[in-house]
Amino acid sequence: MEAESFFRRDLINSLAGYKSLNLIGTKNQKGITNLSPFSQVFHIGASPPLVGILFRPHTVERHTLENIIETGFFTLNHVTESFYKKAHQTAARYPFSEFEAVGLEEEFLEDFFAPFVKISPVKVACTLVETSTMKVNGTVMVVGSIEHIWVEEKGLLADGSLDLEAMGTVTCSGLDTYYTGKKLSRLSYPKPDQVLKEI
Amino acid sequence: MEAESFFRRDLINSLAGYKSLNLIGTKNQKGITNLSPFSQVFHIGASPPLVGILFRPHTVERHTLENIIETGFFTLNHVTESFYKKAHQTAARYPFSEFEAVGLEEEFLEDFFAPFVKISPVKVACTLVETSTMKVNGTVMVVGSIEHIWVEEKGLLADGSLDLEAMGTVTCSGLDTYYTGKKLSRLSYPKPDQVLKEI
Repeated sequence: MEAESFFRRDLINSLAGYKSLNLIGTKNQKGITNLSPFSQVFHIGASPPLVGILFRPHTVERHTLENIIETGFFTLNHVTESFYKKAHQTAARYPFSEFEAVGLEEEFLEDFFAPFVKISPVKVACTLVETSTMKVNGTVMVVGSIEHIWVEEKGLLADGSLDLEAMGTVTCSGLDTYYTGKKLSRLSYPKPDQVLKEI
Repeated sequence: MEAESFFRRDLINSLAGYKSLNLIGTKNQKGITNLSPFSQVFHIGASPPLVGILFRPHTVERHTLENIIETGFFTLNHVTESFYKKAHQTAARYPFSEFEAVGLEEEFLEDFFAPFVKISPVKVACTLVETSTMKVNGTVMVVGSIEHIWVEEKGLLADGSLDLEAMGTVTCSGLDTYYTGKKLSRLSYPKPDQVLKEI
């Protein structure tokens, strides 16, 4: 913990392992859209369906947070191997919409206020439920209610789970390293005196 | 959102994409150790170094949460391709230590109270900072302070970031599907008028 600051930042950032990667789409009241990459989106509950996002204090992604608080709407969009470099580039500080800046087409679905990424295989429409600020360092947690889900047909399995490998969804580590996933197996529900099966 | 309940559970659970996977090691005041898999460990800050964990309400992992609150100590341990099935099996309801039940050797390092997984390539010693309960559905967030880190030498890059692929760290989706990562690239810091480089 006495390491030099960049070394420490990179180590602590990659410590938990692989992270999910989503582009969050928002629009402000003036109609300007915004797109930014987030690796801290997680599962809060399935019934009601809720998602959580952590926003670091004082980071470049504050436009996204401001738009969510101002309008109450945002979208989550999976990032795939075919456009992860454009997704990375949306983190640059543009004075106009990142959709236009990096060349990702925006899409509006069913009159939902916030924009989706047209080529993304998983698109989720969310409305703001609550925000809370952590005392320890000012990190903001946003909880969203999942209102609509669009999934590319080849990515949706019969039981409802997603085939991330088939869709080419990427995962990331730290601040800048991208990976695809290679499936090992799906395992049966674990019980004390039962041998696990690949299902 | 009107889908049948198992379908909905699996869909919502895999919606954000790939997740990190860590085994959390704890020990209660009677000296009984516990080990359980968690896919919701995330980055809160690097300075001071903080980690967050989400605990679902009423799930099998409550022993872990009880031990953390009772003693103030826990460990994070990466899961690799060589023992992910044992890691999955630790989620079964055992009346004694999961280390013994699934055959993962426990290790104690530098007199830290909680046990580590001996064969894990990344071991992190944490102390409890705060817990908070989300009003919306009773999800509990634990914030821990990172006290010590052990990383297998081949996994630590010169700049401090971790080479997850070299260590064989696995990632998961939903409740039961495991993947290894295959590196695409590491990208330079994004700036508006600059072409991204692979670094």
